[in-house]
Amino acid sequence: MAYERLPLSDNLSVNEEGRLFFAGADTRTLAEKYGTPLYLMDEDRIRANIRLYKDAFRDLWPGEAEVLYASKACSFLEICRIAESEGISLDAVSPGELLTAKKAGFDLGRAYFQGNNKTDEDIACAVEWGVGTFVTDNPEELSALEKEAARRGIRQKILLRLTPGVDCHTYEAVNTGKVDSKFGVAIETGQAASFVREALASAHLELLGFHCHVGSQVFDEDVFERTARIMLGFIASVREKTGYTARVLDLGGGYGVRYVDRDPAIDVRKKIGDVSETIRETCRELSLPLPRLLMEPGRSIVADAGLTLYRTGSVKRIPGYKNYLSVDGGMGDNPRFALYGARYTVYPAEKMREERDMVCDLVGRFCESGDEIQRDIRMPRSMERGDLVAVATTGAYNYSMASLYNRVPRPPVVMIRNGEDRLVVRRETPEDLLALDL
Amino acid sequence: MAYERLPLSDNLSVNEEGRLFFAGADTRTLAEKYGTPLYLMDEDRIRANIRLYKDAFRDLWPGEAEVLYASKACSFLEICRIAESEGISLDAVSPGELLTAKKAGFDLGRAYFQGNNKTDEDIACAVEWGVGTFVTDNPEELSALEKEAARRGIRQKILLRLTPGVDCHTYEAVNTGKVDSKFGVAIETGQAASFVREALASAHLELLGFHCHVGSQVFDEDVFERTARIMLGFIASVREKTGYTARVLDLGGGYGVRYVDRDPAIDVRKKIGDVSETIRETCRELSLPLPRLLMEPGRSIVADAGLTLYRTGSVKRIPGYKNYLSVDGGMGDNPRFALYGARYTVYPAEKMREERDMVCDLVGRFCESGDEIQRDIRMPRSMERGDLVAVATTGAYNYSMASLYNRVPRPPVVMIRNGEDRLVVRRETPEDLLALDL
Repeated sequence: MAYERLPLSDNLSVNEEGRLFFAGADTRTLAEKYGTPLYLMDEDRIRANIRLYKDAFRDLWPGEAEVLYASKACSFLEICRIAESEGISLDAVSPGELLTAKKAGFDLGRAYFQGNNKTDEDIACAVEWGVGTFVTDNPEELSALEKEAARRGIRQKILLRLTPGVDCHTYEAVNTGKVDSKFGVAIETGQAASFVREALASAHLELLGFHCHVGSQVFDEDVFERTARIMLGFIASVREKTGYTARVLDLGGGYGVRYVDRDPAIDVRKKIGDVSETIRETCRELSLPLPRLLMEPGRSIVADAGLTLYRTGSVKRIPGYKNYLSVDGGMGDNPRFALYGARYTVYPAEKMREERDMVCDLVGRFCESGDEIQRDIRMPRSMERGDLVAVATTGAYNYSMASLYNRVPRPPVVMIRNGEDRLVVRRETPEDLLALDL
Repeated sequence: MAYERLPLSDNLSVNEEGRLFFAGADTRTLAEKYGTPLYLMDEDRIRANIRLYKDAFRDLWPGEAEVLYASKACSFLEICRIAESEGISLDAVSPGELLTAKKAGFDLGRAYFQGNNKTDEDIACAVEWGVGTFVTDNPEELSALEKEAARRGIRQKILLRLTPGVDCHTYEAVNTGKVDSKFGVAIETGQAASFVREALASAHLELLGFHCHVGSQVFDEDVFERTARIMLGFIASVREKTGYTARVLDLGGGYGVRYVDRDPAIDVRKKIGDVSETIRETCRELSLPLPRLLMEPGRSIVADAGLTLYRTGSVKRIPGYKNYLSVDGGMGDNPRFALYGARYTVYPAEKMREERDMVCDLVGRFCESGDEIQRDIRMPRSMERGDLVAVATTGAYNYSMASLYNRVPRPPVVMIRNGEDRLVVRRETPEDLLALDL
């Protein structure tokens, strides 16, 4: 039988011996070389995903545009180096993410500092490091930032985060654009207008425009278009009331990613074309100049560039109940099923051509029943201790959400480019976990 | 107004100025000294909780008994030193937890190695370190351990983990004793009997007895009694079929803990007395010798010995919707609301005598709507940026489940004894988070 591509993503394939290849590399070879659990990342895919956004904006949006990598999806030095080398900007939510970018040689002038609760220390640190733009979430932050900028005698560029009141029908936990949200200030209630007046009154803050983020893993047909219309309407109303015209419109991130075969495939280029057209039309209607357009993909840059490899520890068959296939990782390295019941596609990495005749739950090694990776998957009945298991589309919100639960060290990250692998985050050790203990 | 004890736990009190005291220490002073977020732990309470279990077994159980601290609830050097100094045993679920105990000077001969998926490396490491007893979860582990013990020419003591088929009505994610579980081998299906025969046939394994764990945060009236009867029935049936009489019965852990005022207060001493009586009666009925009795409290040793302090970043009042009080921590240091919708009691630590006239959600600083600590709590309307917020009963499964999400460093842990504070886990820094990045 020939080499075969898998339907989920074209960086997944199966060789003639039934072994799973990821980004052109043999998963068995990588598991043997680096051990398991193991995060793999496909650098070519990361770069291709970045270019998809960049090129679409360049080709389909007549004004200025900026693509920000939302580094909360996955942040470590090498990811920031890749983002820097692709010339995109960065969305960071903490001094930790900013420091990662800084140490990677990323120009923090192109960084946007997000978050609903920046402390005075966070603000001082980000200003000190020359972060280009603050995405200011609330009036308290505005005052604190104004004070810090005044103390240093600078004028800090800011966007204001607004909640447009759009429900994007994603997981409740990542649905952020509704009026009822911990993020931003609502347009609907009139509070956003006061927020803008406060920002404009500040001598040490330069208001560039507005930010919104309706949620992550968005598939709805026209959610960015609806959001853009609300935001542009707000820009027009602010202009009318104050004479101030926002120059920047940040639509947040990002388009949905396929986790399972039945998820729709989104044509990002076409979508960006559609949003572009809506914004141009709306600007024409409202006689607004084209804003500098920002988008913040995170998940859609790295999710399908990731794959996690585990080894089977036991297969439990409980007659009349269920089967459990347990592996050497779990909610520590991937808490998304425990948190959201998130879907994933799971492969028997060394037995890809065997019949999948056993329904089972894929569970982890953590001491908790909730430590599951996926329910009711199909695997070959022959699966046994030592067999590799691959979970696809783990590039986003896996390494970045990893915990130290059970004092289980975090897996390493291996980056693959042109079929060549290299370690970019080393495996944590039990000794590392004691570093803070006195 | 006088110094006042709070109803949730007697290590919580309020001074005449309306400030919250924990373990006799002023929370404001501690927040100023160590910064926020901050985990506080009450050493006197930890020791009292340990002694409650120890003394109850000593006084109310006529046979031998052993109390194991389930270190997955909270593991760091100082906790293990405290457990060692109280002379109890330890339940560990990973080389990381074992190493923590080892470095704390804990005698690993008194350690029990748990977990549903011990890798070959985990097994080799635990045998190398002289771990007293393995709680063997499944036949694959049994073979791997037999092989390792044979290789070293030793006889390793083991318990077998069985699932008694008891539903203890706790959170689904920590309900582990049902037949349908990733843990252990089921009695009901007959698989436990084969598991025992395999263990008895092994030349390098010494079967001491059986372990079960019906779940965590158990309040049901007689769950340990029901479990004990099933386990003793199994012990009797094994004796009948094989002539082997188990000497150890490990009932797992632990009694439920009060998170909110309306949770029932459990009289652990009385409960242990009841279990003791049930076991004695059942042994008499079945003509079994009294087993060595083990229990594994974790949560009930440390939960109410913990309190987390945060500082308010912003208070959002969205007319017609909701109020949000956001603080400088959240799901990174306490993921239990995000995971289970867990309940907590929240206090305005510096405004304890003000009217709580604002209903709000307590949310964190992490970039996700799901980052909530508690919904619909009551706080004073005067709460503003900088004000301290305390979340009680955070000693278990907070520090131990902490993640590095958003690259936000983990808070330090300060231990309080006789009103004196000392740092036992230092604050993580953004630099620490880069330690593994190449």
